[in-house]
Amino acid sequence: MPSSPIRKLAPLANEAKRQGVKVYHLNIGQPDLPTPQQGLDALKTITRKTLEYSPSEGYLSFREKLVGYYRKFGINDITQENIIITSGGSEAILFALLACLNPGDEMIMVEPGYANYISFAVTAGIKVVTVTSNIEDGFVLPPMEAFEEAITKHTKAILLCNPNNPTGYVYSPEELQRLKELVLKYDLYLIADEVYREFVYTDEPYVSALTLGIPEHVILVDSVSKRYSECGIRIGMLVTRNRMVHDTVMKYCQARLSPPLLGQIVADASVEGVEEYTKACFEEYKARRDFFIKGLNSIPGVYSPMPHGAFYTVASLPVADAEDFCRWCLTDFRLDNETVMMAPAAGFYRNPDLGRNQVRLAYVLKKEDLQRSLMLIRAALKAYNNRNVF
Amino acid sequence: MPSSPIRKLAPLANEAKRQGVKVYHLNIGQPDLPTPQQGLDALKTITRKTLEYSPSEGYLSFREKLVGYYRKFGINDITQENIIITSGGSEAILFALLACLNPGDEMIMVEPGYANYISFAVTAGIKVVTVTSNIEDGFVLPPMEAFEEAITKHTKAILLCNPNNPTGYVYSPEELQRLKELVLKYDLYLIADEVYREFVYTDEPYVSALTLGIPEHVILVDSVSKRYSECGIRIGMLVTRNRMVHDTVMKYCQARLSPPLLGQIVADASVEGVEEYTKACFEEYKARRDFFIKGLNSIPGVYSPMPHGAFYTVASLPVADAEDFCRWCLTDFRLDNETVMMAPAAGFYRNPDLGRNQVRLAYVLKKEDLQRSLMLIRAALKAYNNRNVF
Repeated sequence: MPSSPIRKLAPLANEAKRQGVKVYHLNIGQPDLPTPQQGLDALKTITRKTLEYSPSEGYLSFREKLVGYYRKFGINDITQENIIITSGGSEAILFALLACLNPGDEMIMVEPGYANYISFAVTAGIKVVTVTSNIEDGFVLPPMEAFEEAITKHTKAILLCNPNNPTGYVYSPEELQRLKELVLKYDLYLIADEVYREFVYTDEPYVSALTLGIPEHVILVDSVSKRYSECGIRIGMLVTRNRMVHDTVMKYCQARLSPPLLGQIVADASVEGVEEYTKACFEEYKARRDFFIKGLNSIPGVYSPMPHGAFYTVASLPVADAEDFCRWCLTDFRLDNETVMMAPAAGFYRNPDLGRNQVRLAYVLKKEDLQRSLMLIRAALKAYNNRNVF
Repeated sequence: MPSSPIRKLAPLANEAKRQGVKVYHLNIGQPDLPTPQQGLDALKTITRKTLEYSPSEGYLSFREKLVGYYRKFGINDITQENIIITSGGSEAILFALLACLNPGDEMIMVEPGYANYISFAVTAGIKVVTVTSNIEDGFVLPPMEAFEEAITKHTKAILLCNPNNPTGYVYSPEELQRLKELVLKYDLYLIADEVYREFVYTDEPYVSALTLGIPEHVILVDSVSKRYSECGIRIGMLVTRNRMVHDTVMKYCQARLSPPLLGQIVADASVEGVEEYTKACFEEYKARRDFFIKGLNSIPGVYSPMPHGAFYTVASLPVADAEDFCRWCLTDFRLDNETVMMAPAAGFYRNPDLGRNQVRLAYVLKKEDLQRSLMLIRAALKAYNNRNVF
């Protein structure tokens, strides 16, 4: 079981904080934006006296609201019967893997990829095979030949995160068509993690995997964590029109009894009537992206492509070992008693050497904090590369 | 992946309810007792504006309070560093299995046993080996010879639920000593699910596995679900002094990011100052037990041992196939437009034939509902055994 590249340096950050150092967290997608007020208010008006189990599949009223939500993204043809509420998107991914693949089966994902996918695959006894996207061409979908080379008789699924975490890349309609052909040709499942769909900064229309016309093949993974700044309530969804997959996932859901009740109350109150909130978040993230990526690329030796979605980017740094640099920032580097925490990108690659000089950065902080973080990265790189190593 | 015997008949119950039938739920350990008011109040006073991720191991303040809680049960020698907050006891069990055993390893549990243990073992790729306890002798711990016969070179752990779900049996200090010897002799982990420790109705002192003097071997699984009637908030704990197990569990915790934030706020507010609440719950369950078990045994052909803990019992019924009977109660039997839902016990045995005529019953309803449920069971058995089957 690998350690999370996002959280494994947390003890070092905690130690720095204990020393009174302020740490800017670019390592984790924890937005500083507020939760919608209507979601927070829902907690104040709970009248039930017993906080009892919810249904294993989640509350009906919440799932019905989600049907309307998905319709806004062109996902029609689903009902509440296709939606299962999970304990965060994390659980949805794990259950999708457990339901679609047997131990020993293989799953293909693009690297760099969300590191915890590999953890969930390990949990399910599944072998992860990666096809590599490159920072040089902005992390576009690798060519079909790369996928076909990776496919074996044990391959059962492709896992795609779109918009992508960690790269921020948004797959084009053409790229998704190519994936669709692959899925049909080799009879694969397409597990589509689309938790960042609200954060797409291009003018191209966003295409959900559930609108590709291959409903029996698609398992959609979703979450309210990012779109409503509700990471802590642990409410995700798994959506599929494949009845067998649905029913198998339900067995796992029943074993763990139920998704969080209180989180459902907050999320249920957040689904409708949040257009203004959503628009404001979108504008804010877009402005942060524009500011942050420009700032990054102005630091000598740093390169980041322009991400078109989500709120992450993978940047290359002028260091040989970005993990060592990230550790050093937490243990040694201080500027006015402040430092910065980044996630080494090596953990987002199956072959860590490919991302050795890269970091994943989340631009989830307000602009002045991003500005300060950029200053810290610039100063840290300079100090790190000028330090005496004995 | 097996279906949950506790929840798999839920669609039939839902259909009955849709028809306007009142269903008494003896199938599930969902107490009707209120959550402590201080827990509910904590939700009204949340001032944070962003419902952000909590630490993967749970909030420090909550874990510190739990240290004090465990001390009341003679569990000293632990600190907050030994406690990890999980998404319900369910997740604690899964993570304990994933951390202690490799795929293909074997785990021993007593049957009848909590059915979802088997689901979690399937998830982790672990083989479950059972030793059988019998209704005739009140489900005492099977003899050591039965355990030794079950142990192979692949056996890595014994999973014990004490007080037991589904039987309500409370293992004696002598029985636990025997288990301790076994654990030491074969160098096994002892995964101890003690979520019902507050509900022990004997005068014998309750012995936690963490007080047996084998701290490196013990992983304690715990939950606030039952003791504070907070099933829905999904807050459990894993407690171990084995550092390697702790650190491995933490990798799984980091992959799923964090336990529920809101649940932690409620549970944190419920740990201290609930002595009166706890005493009232205890007295209530004890009275329900006395009433319900006596009532059960007064129904012709029904037998239940007297459970000394938790709020379940496994009873034998005068039917050949209890699952068929349970289904029939939901689909066909009505008395004044009411019926009763029970969990077929076959699913709590590795060999379902052993529990073919048994059900698990939870006495979590108020006395008048239990009384009505007993009446329904009595009438249903009579009607079922007198029906014409074509």
